[in-house]
Amino acid sequence: MSETQSLSLAKQLIAEPSVTPDDQNCQAILAERLQNIGFSIETLHFGRTKNIWARRGSEAPLLCFAGHTDVVPSGPLEKWDSPPFEPTEREGRLYGRGAADMKTSIACFVTACERFIAAHPDHQGSIALLITSDEEGDADDGTTKVVDVLKARGETIDYCIVGEPTAVDTLGDTIKNGRRGSLSGNLTVKGKQGHIAYPHLAVNPVHTFAPALAELAATEWDNGNEYFPPTGFQVSNINGGTGATNVIPGALNVKFNFRFSTESTDIGLKQRVHDILDKHGITYDIEWQCSGQPFLTSAGRLTEVAQAAIRQVCGVEAQLSTSGGTSDGRFIKAVAAELIELGPSNASIHQINENVLLEDIPKLSAIYEEMMRQLL
Amino acid sequence: MSETQSLSLAKQLIAEPSVTPDDQNCQAILAERLQNIGFSIETLHFGRTKNIWARRGSEAPLLCFAGHTDVVPSGPLEKWDSPPFEPTEREGRLYGRGAADMKTSIACFVTACERFIAAHPDHQGSIALLITSDEEGDADDGTTKVVDVLKARGETIDYCIVGEPTAVDTLGDTIKNGRRGSLSGNLTVKGKQGHIAYPHLAVNPVHTFAPALAELAATEWDNGNEYFPPTGFQVSNINGGTGATNVIPGALNVKFNFRFSTESTDIGLKQRVHDILDKHGITYDIEWQCSGQPFLTSAGRLTEVAQAAIRQVCGVEAQLSTSGGTSDGRFIKAVAAELIELGPSNASIHQINENVLLEDIPKLSAIYEEMMRQLL
Repeated sequence: MSETQSLSLAKQLIAEPSVTPDDQNCQAILAERLQNIGFSIETLHFGRTKNIWARRGSEAPLLCFAGHTDVVPSGPLEKWDSPPFEPTEREGRLYGRGAADMKTSIACFVTACERFIAAHPDHQGSIALLITSDEEGDADDGTTKVVDVLKARGETIDYCIVGEPTAVDTLGDTIKNGRRGSLSGNLTVKGKQGHIAYPHLAVNPVHTFAPALAELAATEWDNGNEYFPPTGFQVSNINGGTGATNVIPGALNVKFNFRFSTESTDIGLKQRVHDILDKHGITYDIEWQCSGQPFLTSAGRLTEVAQAAIRQVCGVEAQLSTSGGTSDGRFIKAVAAELIELGPSNASIHQINENVLLEDIPKLSAIYEEMMRQLL
Repeated sequence: MSETQSLSLAKQLIAEPSVTPDDQNCQAILAERLQNIGFSIETLHFGRTKNIWARRGSEAPLLCFAGHTDVVPSGPLEKWDSPPFEPTEREGRLYGRGAADMKTSIACFVTACERFIAAHPDHQGSIALLITSDEEGDADDGTTKVVDVLKARGETIDYCIVGEPTAVDTLGDTIKNGRRGSLSGNLTVKGKQGHIAYPHLAVNPVHTFAPALAELAATEWDNGNEYFPPTGFQVSNINGGTGATNVIPGALNVKFNFRFSTESTDIGLKQRVHDILDKHGITYDIEWQCSGQPFLTSAGRLTEVAQAAIRQVCGVEAQLSTSGGTSDGRFIKAVAAELIELGPSNASIHQINENVLLEDIPKLSAIYEEMMRQLL
């Protein structure tokens, strides 16, 4: 493919050092390009976070692309082979912070819009872009707030493509059609400190917690389903003890996390943890944080169109997957009937020398364009 | 009682700031007193540690008093109501570092010898004192080395009184006739670090260890016996995790301790721990340290004489006990047929304002003297 507009725009965005939540000039660059092809641009700023909601057309169906202009920090500059905010082509790849996560996919979607609208100025339905500068940070003032605005005025999305990097080995090999939920617990098991030679005067929280821990680690929380692996429980940190080897600790701290499928709920999991702790007669405090509910788009129109576009452009059969961490899809799903994540390779994201294959850039743009053609 | 020699000598010893392992002038003071009543003094210096083996007589039975002239550090001077190395009488008590642990009992035994020998210059058997300046520290160059010397020349003790503070509520209420053994383990459970969202790529050592921990905490190691409570297992420290809440830890460190009765052995306990860990398929390293084998003097001649002397002097019925931490008794038992610990109140040992009751001082000396009378 000889299309070079996507590469140019990707480079323009990477040259902006938009470390979360600072958008720099990215959204202004995008707004200008989109205005030129008939989008109306709504700027939605919350706190230090810039967001835009750009829409072309008022009819259904609405195809929305969601993405973020913010990037994670570069890490040590001296470890980069070229400066992270100077987009650099080298050995068939485009290097720069945000190259994969996710400025290239934004550029590819914008140029896909330009080509599609030039060919189909009177396309059916509508196209929108939801762009935030707060995905890599707290994510408090970004997509979730824009979704609140959309909800408040009853604006709904029929098809949403989140441009997160999803390819594992080769472009198009993976479409994310959902994500597991994430529920974290910060547990303090209470005991009574004492001398190790006089255990009858103390209560060792490591001992009282031991059978509960064994049960938590052995429990099958659910069996997952067609799209999700079984819900998993993992302890990330466990700490008890004064450092002295002759003292029974007075408390034990345990941090754990559930990645949960749509077969479980955060409320249900909390109750089951409490039941296990209570059954073992443990005295404890627990702080819960649910940072994302699970969401799922079953195989259907959007996944089929994406797979067909990938097949046509890349000759690859895309797998549906719900693995991995969280994304802004968790927020958008509330207003989107169907939602997938589809972008470039995730192999180098958040790393030194983040990059995308140059040959993948026009292909990704072509996939997005083909999806517009089939959906609108 | 009007005997004041014991108090005077105790004060003289307390005035020496003999923080472990520095004897200052204590042993020289004792040696002079003992030489004056016919003891031959053997000085046994190892490293920075001074020890003396003082013996009067060459016949059996040999009654030995064992003690240490070193003391733990004073702690913050400003918290003491009188300077720790200025022995001070106040409200019926003698204050000073080492007053209870254990300069007073040494003084009481020396003065008991003086009175007993004055009355019985040709007593039967022998009397010895084993005095070290390294009991509160590493204890590497103290009693254990003197015992090696005694062993090498086949010198054995028939009755040994260790002057450690043993009284709980009132002088004479408790005789220690043994101590539990102490076996410590430093366990590293090995896993494989990974992202918490991808547990199938990691091995969580907290989870693999959980059922083994539950079994270790629930195991009955033995039932104890007439003199010992059951062997106990306690975790003192457990630490795993990077601090990050999205990372499965690569390793888990667990420090634990057994206080074990004479119904178990350190070798047997180690084997049972290994068996439990192996049964649960855990990958681990473990460092063992046995800081003391359990020892026991069954009720017999020595305990009966001690109880009779206490009954006569204090009107108290002494209980036999094996509770508490370690003492140099663990070393001496190797060359002593019968061994007990008998000294003043342990309520203030190692604390600010360490003290003994003034009225207990002549009584303790009288108990020791009465025991000489009955045993020799």
